[in-house]
Amino acid sequence: MIPVVIEWQENNRTLKLLDQTKLPVRLVHLTCRTHQDVCVAIKRLSVRGAPAIGIAAAYGVVLAACQASKMTPQDRDEFIESAISDLAQTRPTAVNLFWALNLMKQELKSASSASGDALIARLLTRARYIHEDDRARCEQIGQHGVALLADGFRILTHCNAGALATGGIGTALAPIYLAHKNGMQLHVFADETRPLLQGARLTVWELMQAGVDVTLISDNTAAYTIRTKQIDCIITGADRITRNGDVANKIGTYGLAVFAKHHDIPFYVAAPVSTFDFALETGDDIPIEIHATEILTESFGERIAPLNADAFVPAFDVTPHDLVTAIVTEKGIIRPPYADAIAALAE
Amino acid sequence: MIPVVIEWQENNRTLKLLDQTKLPVRLVHLTCRTHQDVCVAIKRLSVRGAPAIGIAAAYGVVLAACQASKMTPQDRDEFIESAISDLAQTRPTAVNLFWALNLMKQELKSASSASGDALIARLLTRARYIHEDDRARCEQIGQHGVALLADGFRILTHCNAGALATGGIGTALAPIYLAHKNGMQLHVFADETRPLLQGARLTVWELMQAGVDVTLISDNTAAYTIRTKQIDCIITGADRITRNGDVANKIGTYGLAVFAKHHDIPFYVAAPVSTFDFALETGDDIPIEIHATEILTESFGERIAPLNADAFVPAFDVTPHDLVTAIVTEKGIIRPPYADAIAALAE
Repeated sequence: MIPVVIEWQENNRTLKLLDQTKLPVRLVHLTCRTHQDVCVAIKRLSVRGAPAIGIAAAYGVVLAACQASKMTPQDRDEFIESAISDLAQTRPTAVNLFWALNLMKQELKSASSASGDALIARLLTRARYIHEDDRARCEQIGQHGVALLADGFRILTHCNAGALATGGIGTALAPIYLAHKNGMQLHVFADETRPLLQGARLTVWELMQAGVDVTLISDNTAAYTIRTKQIDCIITGADRITRNGDVANKIGTYGLAVFAKHHDIPFYVAAPVSTFDFALETGDDIPIEIHATEILTESFGERIAPLNADAFVPAFDVTPHDLVTAIVTEKGIIRPPYADAIAALAE
Repeated sequence: MIPVVIEWQENNRTLKLLDQTKLPVRLVHLTCRTHQDVCVAIKRLSVRGAPAIGIAAAYGVVLAACQASKMTPQDRDEFIESAISDLAQTRPTAVNLFWALNLMKQELKSASSASGDALIARLLTRARYIHEDDRARCEQIGQHGVALLADGFRILTHCNAGALATGGIGTALAPIYLAHKNGMQLHVFADETRPLLQGARLTVWELMQAGVDVTLISDNTAAYTIRTKQIDCIITGADRITRNGDVANKIGTYGLAVFAKHHDIPFYVAAPVSTFDFALETGDDIPIEIHATEILTESFGERIAPLNADAFVPAFDVTPHDLVTAIVTEKGIIRPPYADAIAALAE
C-alpha cells in the first residue's frame, strides 16, 4: 500500500505531507499548520511533481484562510492574496502550481463577502476539488493505458511519474498499478535517474510499497536491459508536450526513445491533457532548464569531479514525436499523426 | 601535465603509484616498499585499468626480489613465486595481470641461478619492458587514431580509458592527447559512468590536467548532448573483443553505440591487440561480471534505494560489431568486415 502523500486533516485543520526528501530511508510525514510551512515544504522538495505541488499549494491557501480567520475581511483577503503570491514563487516553472493557485484566487474573489468559516469552507471545497480532479485524471490515464499492457510484461520507466508526483496513482505508473490490481504479473525496471535519483529514491520505493516487482538499474544500463531482459515497452511521464507531439521530460527520456526504436519496442508517454502546451508548435520552442554544475559535480554531499570542472546538466530533454508510439491521456490514447489528434484535444 | 601514474624509484627501490581512490579531490602518491603493498594498492583500486594493473604487478615482483635478497636461492625463488601468486589473486579477471605475471615468472625461471642483485636487475629490466611496451602501444594507438579526428571535433567518451588506466597516454584518450599536442582544438564530453564514476573522477581530471577542454555529463545526457552539441564521434576503450568484432566494455557503451547509429556519427573503439580474445567467436560467449546490488543501491556512502530493493548491476555490456565503425589498435585501424581483419591480427 502506498501511504498518504497529501491529506487535509479536518480535525485540526492541518495539511499532512509525506516528506519525500527522507525517502527511501525514512517514512516521515510533515504537518503544515501555515501556508509558510507549505512554501518551505515545496522549496525543500518535500513535496514534488507538478500535480502534487499544485494540490499542496491549494491546501496552503486554505491554511492561510485559517490563519486569517480573526482578521477584518479586508486584512484577511489581503493576507490570503499575499499567501497565494508566496506560494506561487516557490517553484517558478511549475505550470500546475499557477493553475491551482488561479482557481483558489477566483474562489477567494467570488467568496470575499463570506464569513471567516464560510470562506474557509469554500476554499477547502475548491482545494479538495483540485485534489480529486487530479486523482480522477490519474485513474483515467491508468484505465486507458492498461490496454497497452499484457500479463508478463516487462516495462522500463524513468524518473518518478507515480503516486508521489500526483494526487492519485500517477501518470506513467497509473497503467502499471491498475494492471497489477487486475492481476497481471508485471516486472518494472526503473532507471535511477541521475542527477537527482528520483527513480532510485521514489519510483522503486512506491512500486515496492504497492507490491509491484521492480528492479533498479543505472541509466546507462537501460540499453543492455532492453536487449537482455526482453523489455516489452517503455513508459514515461511528460513535463510538456507541443502541438506536433514532441515531448519534454526528465533528462534521459530522449535516449530511451532512441533505444525503443532501435529494439523495435513501443515508447509510450502518459500525461494529463494539462501537459499539452497548445501555444507551442514544436519541441524546439520549449525552454530547457539547465541545473547548476554542482548538481552533478557535487552529488550526495561529495565532490565527484575536479574543482572547477565544467559540466552540462540539463534538467529535461525533448523527444521528437516520431519516436513516440502513443500518448496516454485521461481522454484516451492518441497516436500519430499527432498534429490532428492534439488539435482535437485543444478544443 | 598528467602526473606520474606508475614509477619505479631506483634510488630506494620502491614503486610510486598515484592513488586513484583519492582523485579528483586529492593528488596523493603511494610508496610501495613490498609486494604486499602492491597487492593492497590493486585490491583497494588505488591502481586500476587492466594495463596499469599488469605493470604495477610486474614491479611488485621486483619488490618481492628485493625483499628476498638476503635469502638462500631456494627460499628466495619460493618467496618470489609465492608473491607472484599473491599478486595474481588481487583481481581475478584482469587478463593483462596474468600476462604480465607470466612474463615475470619466465624471467625468474631463466634467471634462477643469478645472484640476488643480478636477479633483481633482470626482473626490473623485464618489468620496465612491460611498462615501456604498454607506453609504446598507447602511443601507436594514438598515432593511428588521430587520423580519425579533425580540428574543432567534439568527442564523447565513456569511463576511463586514459593515462590513468595504462602505462602511457591511454587507449580511447590516446588519439585525443596526440591531436591536442598537434594543435587541434578538441572538446571532449565525458560520461560520469555510473555506478563507479570513473568518467567524473578520472577522465575529467586527467583531461583537465592535460589542458584538453572537457565537459562532464551524466550518462543519461549523452543522447541529448549528441543531438544538441553536435558531437562528431564517440570513442571508448574495450575490455574484450571477439573474433567477429563484438566489443565488451564498461556498462553504457552499447547504448552509446546505438546513439551513434541513430545520429549517424561514427562509433570508434580503441584497444591494443591484447584485448582481442581470439578464442571467442562472438560477444555472446563473453561472461559479463555482475556487481553486487549494493554498488548501485548504496552509492556515495548513502542508501539511495529502499532496503532490500532489487537491482541489476552489470559491470560491462556487449556492443555488436555492426554498430562499431572502426577499431583502432597499435597495428592500425581495422574496419568491417571484422572477421577477416581480426583473423589477420591473430597471426
